[in-house]
Amino acid sequence: MTIIVLNFKTYRETTGEAALSLSKICQGVAEDCGVEIAVAPQAVDIRRIAKNVSIPVYAQHVDGVGMGGYTGHVTAVSVQEAGAVGSLINHSERRLQLAQIEASISACKAAGLNTIICTNNVATTRAAAALEPTYVAVEPPELIGSGIAVSQADPEVVRGSVDAVKRICAGVGVLCGAGITTGQDLRAALDLGTEGVLLASGIIKAKDQRAALEDLVAGA
Amino acid sequence: MTIIVLNFKTYRETTGEAALSLSKICQGVAEDCGVEIAVAPQAVDIRRIAKNVSIPVYAQHVDGVGMGGYTGHVTAVSVQEAGAVGSLINHSERRLQLAQIEASISACKAAGLNTIICTNNVATTRAAAALEPTYVAVEPPELIGSGIAVSQADPEVVRGSVDAVKRICAGVGVLCGAGITTGQDLRAALDLGTEGVLLASGIIKAKDQRAALEDLVAGA
Amino acid sequence: MTIIVLNFKTYRETTGEAALSLSKICQGVAEDCGVEIAVAPQAVDIRRIAKNVSIPVYAQHVDGVGMGGYTGHVTAVSVQEAGAVGSLINHSERRLQLAQIEASISACKAAGLNTIICTNNVATTRAAAALEPTYVAVEPPELIGSGIAVSQADPEVVRGSVDAVKRICAGVGVLCGAGITTGQDLRAALDLGTEGVLLASGIIKAKDQRAALEDLVAGA
Amino acid sequence: MTIIVLNFKTYRETTGEAALSLSKICQGVAEDCGVEIAVAPQAVDIRRIAKNVSIPVYAQHVDGVGMGGYTGHVTAVSVQEAGAVGSLINHSERRLQLAQIEASISACKAAGLNTIICTNNVATTRAAAALEPTYVAVEPPELIGSGIAVSQADPEVVRGSVDAVKRICAGVGVLCGAGITTGQDLRAALDLGTEGVLLASGIIKAKDQRAALEDLVAGA
Repeated sequence: MTIIVLNFKTYRETTGEAALSLSKICQGVAEDCGVEIAVAPQAVDIRRIAKNVSIPVYAQHVDGVGMGGYTGHVTAVSVQEAGAVGSLINHSERRLQLAQIEASISACKAAGLNTIICTNNVATTRAAAALEPTYVAVEPPELIGSGIAVSQADPEVVRGSVDAVKRICAGVGVLCGAGITTGQDLRAALDLGTEGVLLASGIIKAKDQRAALEDLVAGA
Repeated sequence: MTIIVLNFKTYRETTGEAALSLSKICQGVAEDCGVEIAVAPQAVDIRRIAKNVSIPVYAQHVDGVGMGGYTGHVTAVSVQEAGAVGSLINHSERRLQLAQIEASISACKAAGLNTIICTNNVATTRAAAALEPTYVAVEPPELIGSGIAVSQADPEVVRGSVDAVKRICAGVGVLCGAGITTGQDLRAALDLGTEGVLLASGIIKAKDQRAALEDLVAGA
Repeated sequence: MTIIVLNFKTYRETTGEAALSLSKICQGVAEDCGVEIAVAPQAVDIRRIAKNVSIPVYAQHVDGVGMGGYTGHVTAVSVQEAGAVGSLINHSERRLQLAQIEASISACKAAGLNTIICTNNVATTRAAAALEPTYVAVEPPELIGSGIAVSQADPEVVRGSVDAVKRICAGVGVLCGAGITTGQDLRAALDLGTEGVLLASGIIKAKDQRAALEDLVAGA
Repeated sequence: MTIIVLNFKTYRETTGEAALSLSKICQGVAEDCGVEIAVAPQAVDIRRIAKNVSIPVYAQHVDGVGMGGYTGHVTAVSVQEAGAVGSLINHSERRLQLAQIEASISACKAAGLNTIICTNNVATTRAAAALEPTYVAVEPPELIGSGIAVSQADPEVVRGSVDAVKRICAGVGVLCGAGITTGQDLRAALDLGTEGVLLASGIIKAKDQRAALEDLVAGA
């Protein structure tokens, strides 16, 4: 099933009440169109959003630590308990060491959470797939926030990632991100063999977030 | 006024419902004894705890970034909006670069949050005081979690920190941490010129958390 | 061919003149026994050692950056120009982000350098192999510096790493490290299918470094 | 005495033989004009440059660790033994945690090395001065590599840094950096009360490095 993951990052439009409102818009669009839309709000907003919407809620980051003396860390157990069903890991804005990525995936699996590892090219996608997350999301850094969709501007990195993942571990899904905004961007991503997209500013910064989402899912 | 800051870290005993229960215990003891007790829960628990208790709630960490494309970061605005009144910064388990500490303090001040910068010796206490936080909390790393109280085992680092802060910026308060458990530990800390203590496992891991807290505040 | 990589770390016994002396001891033993012994000195010592011995010299770390504005970084080009033939990457004492590991390998390959990626378990070994370095060196952190050899105490992690690498990319060699000291440790490592070992304190801290090396290579 | 510190970074023009050539140019200009010019080459080049020129050689970075198991780190002892007389610490391209900066300064002092802590604004300059390095070098990040000299474009951050340092610890010298290229830039920096400048691309990328240096020192 096609999945759209909306990364809330830490924008003004995704902080506090606005994060809850946007989550409800996502839920409304998801219900109307039959596409799975997941939201990834800031840590402090996970519980409230998970309690108020029925669509999947992801954390933006989970540290590769367990319970114990880890001040200021975000644990898999804490986000699961708050209602998240998964987490982004190693986003380009929150890169982790290789050993930490592995530990984070292990902690998420132990807590029953899905995992989306973000990568920046085909080689790191291969490495990430070897860690057997639920999804790898490839995002060329130079296109993030650019408005130029990776699925249209750089289809080779997407196709190469799909091929690499299938060879390493066929059970791992592939998403792509960076510059994704429109239904055409999503359509192109699906045509390249991905299960969906990871996006942020294209929807969050839209004048009409609902209309932008509706345009996006029309490509599914 | 004496302040006790209970850092919840990421223990099992401070995750989810248990975090809320412990916060209520803290509130009960604070009301009975007239000491200020602040709690510093995990990010996902801030909102629920702040809504359910009247004692001060601190974040364990705030990144030195504003609103924008900062996936997986904890912003001052987000924790303030969730009900926190302050944040630990640069805890020994979540060290930051100097420029990040300064940016975090600036972001906290702009959001109206108190700041507690953690340091590891007199020299870093001096540097932290120059950044003008609300408090500096000196915690010699070798004593953290040791059960050996810094205020009794290493009074020089506490006294030296108090002196250094007063010379650099007299308006900054001084806390001490590491191994603090009992009322005697707190008494010793106050006698050395601090405004209070920062502690964690001594209370969190106690068989009877309320009794441990009551013993602690008896030293105030 | 069996390879022994001696990581000099930053011990007193491997700083300055002592690093050069130990390199010459390694060269002497390598000539006498027909085993390849490579040394990995500190960055400042690479050029002098490479000029004075004929055995392979590795850097301990190469950053995943090119030439340009990267103050304080160690580039592949700089260590190659100084005489190194390869580099450790992602040692447990100098962990890198996944994207940095990939960038470091790319930079090393472009400069004609061999690469040894250090990993901590079978899963991260799989991921590292997907990046196609010259070698992966698996070192369970809990055994590093312990004197308890991974090849004897935890053969499963070594065997699992060998199997994983062969499935991911058969051209990648496997080393193991952590606690390796004696010829028996090396023998066990080779019997498990590795190409050799990565070690440090077992030789560096030996009362008689030459004798320790001779005992080690006797296991080849 | 006025000091000019030329940070070699990791440019092609400052790698290998070119680094030695540029160091000799610096020495020539320094002898002719009576200004102290120090060079900060990459770690692998320190020894060769220090052996071949008589001007001061600085490391670009020293980690806050001692001798021991610190693979891939640069120690104060190793750069001192290689001939360096000091080190940059916490450059904007190699930021350190506060506790690491303090540990690095302590290690440098124990090894008899001068220290230049880089900072990004007046507040971090205050904090750095409290650690009592030899110099603080303030460099607003937005001007680094810009060709727009901090001493002319943002005199307030320079003047504010000089004032702050004098209040915190009068024995600490102040340098400024970012965009410094010409003699006028240096003159402006000295007029604002600094002891000198830290610069890089303005000289390194000049078509005629010697002419660029001569123009610079004419401002002293």
